[in-house]
Amino acid sequence: MTASPAEFEARLRQIGAERYHDKHPFHHLLHSGGCTPDQVRAWVINRFYYQASIPIKDAAFMSRVDDPALRRAWRSRIEDHDGTEQNEGGIARWLRLADAVGVDRDYVASKQGVLPASRFAVDAYVRFVRDKSLLEAVAASLTELFAPKIHAARIEGLLANYAFADDNSLSYFRNRLTEAPKDVAFGLAWVLEHADTAEKQDAAAAALIFKTDVLWAQLDALHAAYVTPARIPPGAWQPGTFLRGASA
Amino acid sequence: MTASPAEFEARLRQIGAERYHDKHPFHHLLHSGGCTPDQVRAWVINRFYYQASIPIKDAAFMSRVDDPALRRAWRSRIEDHDGTEQNEGGIARWLRLADAVGVDRDYVASKQGVLPASRFAVDAYVRFVRDKSLLEAVAASLTELFAPKIHAARIEGLLANYAFADDNSLSYFRNRLTEAPKDVAFGLAWVLEHADTAEKQDAAAAALIFKTDVLWAQLDALHAAYVTPARIPPGAWQPGTFLRGASA
Repeated sequence: MTASPAEFEARLRQIGAERYHDKHPFHHLLHSGGCTPDQVRAWVINRFYYQASIPIKDAAFMSRVDDPALRRAWRSRIEDHDGTEQNEGGIARWLRLADAVGVDRDYVASKQGVLPASRFAVDAYVRFVRDKSLLEAVAASLTELFAPKIHAARIEGLLANYAFADDNSLSYFRNRLTEAPKDVAFGLAWVLEHADTAEKQDAAAAALIFKTDVLWAQLDALHAAYVTPARIPPGAWQPGTFLRGASA
Repeated sequence: MTASPAEFEARLRQIGAERYHDKHPFHHLLHSGGCTPDQVRAWVINRFYYQASIPIKDAAFMSRVDDPALRRAWRSRIEDHDGTEQNEGGIARWLRLADAVGVDRDYVASKQGVLPASRFAVDAYVRFVRDKSLLEAVAASLTELFAPKIHAARIEGLLANYAFADDNSLSYFRNRLTEAPKDVAFGLAWVLEHADTAEKQDAAAAALIFKTDVLWAQLDALHAAYVTPARIPPGAWQPGTFLRGASA
């Protein structure tokens, strides 16, 4: 049976309540100040791969959209990440965070040393958006519904617990506090309007679950590789290497 | 500089010596008898996803090959997994292993409960074969160079340490002992012949490294989820559920 938009929205929000990665132990470790400098660096290195892939994902989405109005509404996501004349963009902001935590920004930007499991998860998201229905692609983006809370907690936790944290290094997260709600308001309205059968609602919910898996798998890989007992896969970043200003 | 075929083969074998998943701690745990019944079941459930995807990968490869002789040489891989009138095939054999370790075979075959990280890694391999050059696709299959040793060790270790292990339950691995060398002799000769520039040799070596990452990431996900301290991702198989003959 097709749920009402309000009921369906509640179903989507429940997915976040149960599966969003704010429940992952790595986030608690990070926000509480429990991470070593190298664990923070590993997070910055790996999460960069996700940041850098988001505009590729959004371009893949736009490449499949016939409607100029929808493409126009979506385009600001790419601008938010890649930058404009007035706005350096999220990718550049993330590299400021890399500077602040003392890892070489060129190494981070090279994407060398990213955990294979992070790559596989993020690439799966880009492929998903390239291959699935537009409804599923938009629904997968709705993890942004749950992001402002985690970004606010992250800013507070990092500021309280780490010397590297200041307005400059955390500017990525501050910007997302205003960018994400704008994007997700559009995406949510679009999904609620277009998921007009039970089958489409199921597909959209499954897409959102898929996306929570993508996020969770990244933190799981980070935790397994760099939190005791650490098992760093062959070829991934080794703690203490590629530090800022060092010749590694 | 282009290496000689013998030098290049040595380079490929060195990748296996350094990065093949026989070095992963989960394999030591499994072969030594250190796994609990539920850890063996988790391995059977997750590895099934890989088994089931291999003929899809091989069909994707064949769909890109113009040369009937190459397609004909490749086709036996699909037969080995999917079966023929005379041969039940590797996928059916894997489900006999599922029976033997006491997990419901329909649940295993449904691919429900597979770790998202396993899915992402295996799907990345299928995509790789679909998207990259034929040389890279064949080179990625060369992890089979290192497989007979691990299959022999696995048969020996499982027989010595687990009550479920017998000729019936381990028939998958026994068959691979003869199938894999046949496939890999063809694949290796093809790669050595076609990787005739330094650039192609680098691409083929990178493809083999990619594939070792795919295998390693699957064991890493299994270890993180089901070996103490276990962190099972949302939605993945829960120990003790979907047992054979039980109503879970």
